Order: sequence, then C-alpha cells, then structure tokens
Amino acid sequence: MTPLEVAPVEAELERYGALTGEALRAYLPEGEPRRYLWDLVADYPARGGKALRPALCLASTVAFGGETCEGLPSAVALELLHNAFLVHDDIEDASLLRRGHPTLHLEHGVPLAINAGDALVVLAGAALRDNRRLLGSRLATGVADEFELMARRTIEGQARELGWRRDGVRDLTADDYLDLIMHKTCWYTTIHPLRVGALIGSLGRADLDALVRFGFYLGAAFQIQDDVLNLVGDQSKYGKESCGDLYEGKRTLMVIHLLSETRGDDRRTVERFIALERPERTAEQIAAMIALMREYGSLEFAREFGLGIAAAAEDAFELAFADVPDSPERRLLHALIGWMLERDS
Amino acid sequence: MTPLEVAPVEAELERYGALTGEALRAYLPEGEPRRYLWDLVADYPARGGKALRPALCLASTVAFGGETCEGLPSAVALELLHNAFLVHDDIEDASLLRRGHPTLHLEHGVPLAINAGDALVVLAGAALRDNRRLLGSRLATGVADEFELMARRTIEGQARELGWRRDGVRDLTADDYLDLIMHKTCWYTTIHPLRVGALIGSLGRADLDALVRFGFYLGAAFQIQDDVLNLVGDQSKYGKESCGDLYEGKRTLMVIHLLSETRGDDRRTVERFIALERPERTAEQIAAMIALMREYGSLEFAREFGLGIAAAAEDAFELAFADVPDSPERRLLHALIGWMLERDS
Repeated sequence: MTPLEVAPVEAELERYGALTGEALRAYLPEGEPRRYLWDLVADYPARGGKALRPALCLASTVAFGGETCEGLPSAVALELLHNAFLVHDDIEDASLLRRGHPTLHLEHGVPLAINAGDALVVLAGAALRDNRRLLGSRLATGVADEFELMARRTIEGQARELGWRRDGVRDLTADDYLDLIMHKTCWYTTIHPLRVGALIGSLGRADLDALVRFGFYLGAAFQIQDDVLNLVGDQSKYGKESCGDLYEGKRTLMVIHLLSETRGDDRRTVERFIALERPERTAEQIAAMIALMREYGSLEFAREFGLGIAAAAEDAFELAFADVPDSPERRLLHALIGWMLERDS
Repeated sequence: MTPLEVAPVEAELERYGALTGEALRAYLPEGEPRRYLWDLVADYPARGGKALRPALCLASTVAFGGETCEGLPSAVALELLHNAFLVHDDIEDASLLRRGHPTLHLEHGVPLAINAGDALVVLAGAALRDNRRLLGSRLATGVADEFELMARRTIEGQARELGWRRDGVRDLTADDYLDLIMHKTCWYTTIHPLRVGALIGSLGRADLDALVRFGFYLGAAFQIQDDVLNLVGDQSKYGKESCGDLYEGKRTLMVIHLLSETRGDDRRTVERFIALERPERTAEQIAAMIALMREYGSLEFAREFGLGIAAAAEDAFELAFADVPDSPERRLLHALIGWMLERDS
C-alpha cells in the first residue's frame, strides 16, 4: 500500500472541506438580526480552514463501511462547534488573528462575539439532531453521546490551560502537556471525528476504544506541529499571529521544555516572562525567549518529540484499522499521520 | 376560583425551585478540573434564584394533565441554560452583582467564566437528552425542537440589545422595546416553559400557539417589573447592582420613555448619557437621569404600561387555558400574572 503524498492529502482535505462547507451553510439562518448576529456567526466558517475534523469524520465513515452523506450532519455539527470554540477561545486567549483576519471580538467587540459563539453552539445542536432522520434513533443517540463527551473533554482541557495561565503554574512536564492536549485538542480534533465516523460507518459494530489511542497520537502530532508553526511558521500561510502563543503565555511544548531545562538566570528569565500579563510582554522579551529556546534546543526537542508521537500513531493505526479493508479513505487516514508534521498551515 | 395571594405563590416557587435544584445537582460533574471549571459551573445554580422558569414548566406539565416528574429534565435543562446565559450576559453587560454576590467573571476572570458558561450549555443538552427515555422519541424530539427555537430567540434578542448599546441606537419606541423583550426575555422565561409543559402534559395534543400570546404578556410584565426594581428596588432583596441597567446603558422601558418624551437640553442630557461607555458613567449622571425620569413620569409610565400588559395577560390566559380544568397548578399559573408586578425580588 503506497502512502499518499502531502499534495494529495491537501487535495482530499479541500474536497471534504468544500462538501462540509456547503452542507454547513444550509444551517446558517438568513433572517434578522443580521448585522449583530448572523453575519458574525457566518464569519469564521466563511474564512475556510483546514477541514481536518470533517475530513476525519467523513473518511472514517466511509473506511468503516458507510456512505459520505451519512456522516455529513455529524461533520457539520463538529465544524460548527469548532467555530464556536474558536470564537470563544480567541476572546479567552486575547488572540489578534484568526485565519489571516482580525479575530471576531476585535472586529465586533467582546459582547457580540460571545453571543455569536453561543449561537454557533445552538446551530451545532440543530445539525446533530438531523441524524435522527438520517441514521435512526439508536445511531443518532450514539453520535449525540459522543458529541457531549467530546464537548466536555474540550471544555475541561480549556479550563485547565486557562487556569494554568491565570495562576502562573510553572512546574509542568511533557506528561502534563500530553494530558492537557488530550483534553483540549485531541478529543475534538481527532478522537471524536474518528469514533463518530466508525460508529456510523460500521452501524455501531466497530470497537471505538481502539480509536482513542490512534486519535490521541494523531491529535498530539497535530498540536505539537501547531506549537512549532506558531513560532517559526509563515504567518501568511498559518493565519495566526506569529509567536501569538508566547504573547498569550501558552504552555507550549517548547515552553514546558524550557521550564524543565533552564537553571539560574535563564530559569528566572523564563519564570518572569511566564508571570507577565499579555500587554506587558514586549517584542524584546519574545526574542529573548526564542533565543533561549534556540540555546536549549527546545524546537529540536519538540520536533523530535513529534516524530516519536507520529511513530506511536503508526502503531496505533495498525491496531485500530486491523480489520478495516484497504480503501482510498483508509489510506487518507493513514497518510494524515505524516501530513500532521509536514504541514505548513 | 379564588386567586392565590403573593405569599402562597412564593411558597410554590420555592417548592418547585427545591425540586429542580435537587434534580439539577445530579447533572453537575464531580471530577477534575474542579477549581478551574466544575466549581464555577456549580456557582450560579447554588446561589438560588426565583425558579420562575422551572415552576412554569412543571406547573404547566401538571395543569395540562401530566406528572411533575415528566417535566423535570426539561425544567433542569432550561435552568442550566438560564445559568449559562446569566454567566455570559454578566460578561457582555459588565455586570457587577448576581444574586447578591460578585459576578462569576469578577471572581474568576473573563476567560474561565466564558468557558464555564459553555460547560453549562453542554450540561443542559445532557439533561434534555434524558427526555428520550422518560417521554419517548416523539415527545422528546418535540421538546428538543422547542428548546432550540427558544435558545435562538434568546440569542437573537441579546444580539439586538448588545448591538443597540454598542452603536448608541436612540430612536426607539415602546414597540421596539416589546419586540426586544419578546426575544430576549419572554421566549425563554415564560413562553418556552409554558409550551414545553403543555406539550409534555397533553402528550402533544395542546395548542401551543395559544401559549405564545399569554407567555409574551406574562414575560413582558416580568421584564418591566425587572426594569423598575433595578432602579427603585431594595438591592439586598433584588440581588443585582442598584441602577445597574443605567450604568450598563440598557434600553429599559423608562429610558425609552425618556428618549421619546424629552426635548431640548433634557433630550441632549439623555443622548449624551446613552452615548457614554460604562466606565464613563458617574453616580452624578445616574442621579441626573433618575431626576429626569421623575420629572417626566417615566417610572409611572412603566408601572402603568405594566398594568396594561398584565390586563392583556389575563385575557390571553382565559383563551389559552379555556379547555384546561381547574387545578392548583392552573391557579398558580394564573396567580403569577399579579405576582409579576408585585414581587420585590
């Protein structure tokens, strides 16, 4: 079985993105109040995005024996919730850029942005409930259970990261990082879409627990590359503020590496930086943090850690997909492991 | 049929509140992260509240022929969503006090509070989905449809109010006010719980549209009294910041009355006040606005307008409940009309 190259992976993501985007637009209300609500709700979805989550959901649906259309409302619901999280996260993180444009709260103010995020959650629920007609009561209930679990895990992870930042928590290890991103990122980015696709495609017969392991490693590889791109990526491709994670005080893998490796003056520099509020962080301080990361090899550490995680994902894929016959969709899911670390946007 | 006095109404609200509060607590997770999430989620529900919404839902369930327990998950879901809205509204409105204590975002910071509000929405969904086992698929789907409609209406109303304030909109009439509170307040405070109770209690046979009219007038009476209490109520009973609506620049019925009645210098005073940002509004300016309201009779206007709305509610009640036999629950729903304007908290 020849693995897919990066270019075909991105073409597939684009195809799934177009399919999901069209289905998603059917859930966006047309009426009033447009200028204060529905225009804001439509904004982030219209900015595009990688469509990683819907692609995983739909490819998993087909790989496990279903039709693409059977996974579509679940993919739309996830994408709507993803956009709701983005709107609220951008406020919580005081982020400036999203998909190459100013964040929603910068454009419309925090109050209207919080409210628009709430509306996206309600629309996600509407998409999810359309599963009942499409899949029947048993499968639809299963998907809704998965959706609720995923939303809780994500919110729990977000709470922990926000709490660490608010309280200036510093004694963190790579294990804490993995536990954090398991909740904050992996559950909704990879584990949930894979599980839901398998549930629908197999009519409830697939072993969903085997997908937690694969989804975790795949999602961790995604988040580690996200940490790296935030620091060294091309902002015009990546679409977020360059070094935004550092300005926001996020506990990225490189920051956690610095916290565990530095001693003496360097340690105090890192700790002082971590303790600042966002407006207090200057370009000079960011440059000093990046210099320390170069000196201590934090970027190399993150890249190598990512390679190890990707190797674990390979193993977990073989286990989780042992009984799944070869298909273009199975190959895509496999190829995404490599793509996670090679992507530049 | 003797109408209930205020005291028995409040005893009934307390009884329904205790019942709903106990059922609600079963949906609050016990695990981690406690300090950054689940403690925050449990905070507003534990502060108590009037329990008006669950009382309407449960009394309507029984008045239309059902059992109290059949309405309980729907009442809990509504109360959880209500608390989610309160958390997010308090941020959007920059409110200081909620139920006699500092608002959640003042105690824990905006990021963790937004996230806790999101968690309350997810828990509301969990409560709602328990209807499937309790009521069967058809009625549960009906309740979920009602829930989604209600959430959308509320978010639309909130968007309009926030937009008016952000853009300094001034050319508003009492009709605009009624249209606003129909969306922002009435749908989720009165119309939805009445409709859901009737749907469940009658096994889907009741005419839900007749309840929109009654619910609208009942909810409008509630909101008008809320506007009045915010200005002249006893803060220790009312639990919100005295004159908080004025500090927050809300378009209350009294403010809209002033905007339509004042001319010349007085008009300019009101317009200048409306155009300020919250931190710019001083106690002197609030006192000047209250003095103008006294001079122009804005409070009397609001009180008399409320009496007219209550009279319309009486009419609408007779129509909506024409085929509903007498019962303590029907009497309570009727007595709530008078209570809306007599309550001091």
